[in-house]
Amino acid sequence: MDFERIGVHEVWQGRIASVRVETWRLDDGAEVEREVVGHPGAVAVVAHDGERLFLVTQPREAVGDPALLELPAGKLDEDGEDVLNTAKRELAEEIGKGARSWRHLTSFWSSPGFSDEEIHVYLATDLFDSQAEADENERIEIVTVALSRLDDAIHRCRDAKSLVGLLWLKAFGEGG
Amino acid sequence: MDFERIGVHEVWQGRIASVRVETWRLDDGAEVEREVVGHPGAVAVVAHDGERLFLVTQPREAVGDPALLELPAGKLDEDGEDVLNTAKRELAEEIGKGARSWRHLTSFWSSPGFSDEEIHVYLATDLFDSQAEADENERIEIVTVALSRLDDAIHRCRDAKSLVGLLWLKAFGEGG
Repeated sequence: MDFERIGVHEVWQGRIASVRVETWRLDDGAEVEREVVGHPGAVAVVAHDGERLFLVTQPREAVGDPALLELPAGKLDEDGEDVLNTAKRELAEEIGKGARSWRHLTSFWSSPGFSDEEIHVYLATDLFDSQAEADENERIEIVTVALSRLDDAIHRCRDAKSLVGLLWLKAFGEGG
Repeated sequence: MDFERIGVHEVWQGRIASVRVETWRLDDGAEVEREVVGHPGAVAVVAHDGERLFLVTQPREAVGDPALLELPAGKLDEDGEDVLNTAKRELAEEIGKGARSWRHLTSFWSSPGFSDEEIHVYLATDLFDSQAEADENERIEIVTVALSRLDDAIHRCRDAKSLVGLLWLKAFGEGG
């Protein structure tokens, strides 16, 4: 027996996310139905210049927060764009920086029980000022936190990608 | 001006998740529409007995993995059940253990850009064998990992709650 998707039908299509009902045959032969929220995936960037971490706040209506503190991040929403290039574009758009050093830290599923969203987390260092492209969201504000206060930043962040990225930096430093 | 939800309508209701379109008035007076995936929230438990971490694998159809390695976890799906009690119930159901020591590590939004799912992460130590209640999902398998191999466990996990919980343990130990 194979773990295999044997059927799918779309039940809702939004501007970013979608919902489909999938039928799977499991390894033991059983067939199950699963409701799956489809999402194109995202990147998030732990960016620091050796002294300061660069974070952002923005309104997050889904969770009722007018200024949630997060890593610079964005959706993989440009057709065929390389993941690392998306990270570079988002860093420039959100904090007006480029980076000479890029390292992939980890990639993870945000909610594998019901969503296929995957988030790719990068570390960007050796920063330089970049011509920021116009961002579609003018409500993003840049927040810098001293790297020596990384623990504070971890305790202030309340979302998966920011916790994973900052905890990874705390746990493994530039290695890991 | 206040950051305020001024309208909502449901567009899809599934067995667990739902989708609604919300209208928000932002601090600057603008009105925006947001598609929000509703989810009841979840708990996840970093459980160890001083020598071994207790993890689980199970099929995760949404991400196409027949045996994703994760923390013991579960949805807040019982009406009015206290969050910590949900964590205790899930730990018993999934790994057949109780714990004399419980500590809340953090709570986070899995995807605040489009979902209201919040995950509460606990540390459970001083474990004892528990009469496992029947679990609704018989495909869960217990995986133990030596606590001395925590780094390996972190590198093998691929989902938000497991990374946040294990990285928190690595970064802060039993403190934090």
